[in-house]
Amino acid sequence: MIAVYAPGSVSNVACGFDVLGFALDEPGDVVVAAQQDGSGVSIAAIHGDHGRLSTDPRRNTASAAVMELIRRLETTRGIALTIHKGLPLASGIGSSGASAVAAVVAANELLGRPAPLEVLLECAMAGEQAGCGSIHPDNVTPSLYGGFILARSAQPPDIVHLPVPAGLACAVLHPHVEIETGAARKLLGDQVSLKDATRQWANLGALVAALHTSDLALLSRSLVDTIAEPKRASLVPGLAEIKAAAARAGALGCSLSGSGPSVFALAASIEVARTAGNAMKQAFDQVSGVGSDVWVCPVGRSGARVVSLK
Amino acid sequence: MIAVYAPGSVSNVACGFDVLGFALDEPGDVVVAAQQDGSGVSIAAIHGDHGRLSTDPRRNTASAAVMELIRRLETTRGIALTIHKGLPLASGIGSSGASAVAAVVAANELLGRPAPLEVLLECAMAGEQAGCGSIHPDNVTPSLYGGFILARSAQPPDIVHLPVPAGLACAVLHPHVEIETGAARKLLGDQVSLKDATRQWANLGALVAALHTSDLALLSRSLVDTIAEPKRASLVPGLAEIKAAAARAGALGCSLSGSGPSVFALAASIEVARTAGNAMKQAFDQVSGVGSDVWVCPVGRSGARVVSLK
Repeated sequence: MIAVYAPGSVSNVACGFDVLGFALDEPGDVVVAAQQDGSGVSIAAIHGDHGRLSTDPRRNTASAAVMELIRRLETTRGIALTIHKGLPLASGIGSSGASAVAAVVAANELLGRPAPLEVLLECAMAGEQAGCGSIHPDNVTPSLYGGFILARSAQPPDIVHLPVPAGLACAVLHPHVEIETGAARKLLGDQVSLKDATRQWANLGALVAALHTSDLALLSRSLVDTIAEPKRASLVPGLAEIKAAAARAGALGCSLSGSGPSVFALAASIEVARTAGNAMKQAFDQVSGVGSDVWVCPVGRSGARVVSLK
Repeated sequence: MIAVYAPGSVSNVACGFDVLGFALDEPGDVVVAAQQDGSGVSIAAIHGDHGRLSTDPRRNTASAAVMELIRRLETTRGIALTIHKGLPLASGIGSSGASAVAAVVAANELLGRPAPLEVLLECAMAGEQAGCGSIHPDNVTPSLYGGFILARSAQPPDIVHLPVPAGLACAVLHPHVEIETGAARKLLGDQVSLKDATRQWANLGALVAALHTSDLALLSRSLVDTIAEPKRASLVPGLAEIKAAAARAGALGCSLSGSGPSVFALAASIEVARTAGNAMKQAFDQVSGVGSDVWVCPVGRSGARVVSLK
């Protein structure tokens, strides 16, 4: 039996819609892979999903990813998966991607590590496609590799690893509001103004430079979303107040995580991230009347890794 | 008398529409600033423009830029400018920007260097606005500072200096075809598809990372324009053939320089750039029947600088 932890992730990161993401240090999912009699992939159990995830191996991202791995390896060995969800579903912090990544990495370990990371990435993305109907390389790649990842291309994958400035930390507020990714995407439409798009690529270029030079002031100025956030802001009650609270607390920037409802802030230190996270939660709770969770952690430098079974 | 050389520049650089540019080593413009009796700015002479540039100080980018400098410095000293155009007009390699930059740097030297570079940048952009009716920070900033420059914001200027990989060189083909910048811009429309825009910022982010890591293979994959070039390609006869010739010659990438008609290619060495430049010229000349020029040079690491008068 092999247990693998894969961290959640923040995608889009304000100015990198669909192409940029970073790994959290925590929370994440753990998937245990065990050999089973007979070939194929089965799901032995799912914990922490409140019964909401499919246990049909073809429709669950974790098992679908492993099925793709097994298909590519042409192995007849059977694998049973036990999924421990540490990430809330449909929260915007890469829950489905983390399960797919943890599952393929665990299965690959169990089989003696026949596949390189690039193949595991493709299998995890295939699992997301099967389980969610869409692929999120900006979630899957940080969950697998850790750090900040730019996906120059999703298919074929062209993955660019970006440096993480020392001390960089984040706060993630998860409002107890559910947003369906497909609906959030429809809000965007399929056209954008050239002016807004130009501002977006100016900011993304500057953000990449800021990560390479550890220029946190530039990073802060670059954390602006001219494309998705303006159209999706209404999905999160009090987003303006949450952003203002993060800024007052000294965060470098604050925006939707993926398609929401989670909201992330980046900060120069874990202490500032903690202050910002508390302020963001307070701002949301005052406006909304529904609950929320906050996580505060360093930006995750490590991706999926084997952990010992408790 | 002070003479200042400012190099031409390539803007857009395939994936950085309106925000990215790099300096050429040559060609460029030289502007000589001399003290004159009486206050204000005058144009003593313009060489190399075939009589096409305005000698009305308010309508010439060089003198308009110096007028802005004088206004800001509140000086009553008068300055006469002599402009030596080394750059062809309306060619897409930052001709007006180079004149404006050379002029303000020369005037500032003549006055004892009272203004910092940031102020000179603002004055050069004001000169472009007065002389051309629009501002091109992606030309003006490389011409002033040298190297690759990302303009995260034009107003107020937020300028990001990007590293130049060792040996990086370029070829610029200048087809003898004239394109009016305003007309080239109208071709773009004001809306783009979210899909094309997303590919553009993925490529620009990757290009910035490639410059920081000297990853020329990534640089090459990133030199793709999904926004402007597809709509402007018809302005340059044989663009597809020129691009194919550059690729066959080993160039890293090839696209329109600014709004054209010039076409640039980047290459890993000056030798490859030379081969590419010749191939590009041959491809254009075969298709078009009109003339063309080619320049081959290192990417310019230095911006505007004082030169001795010959």
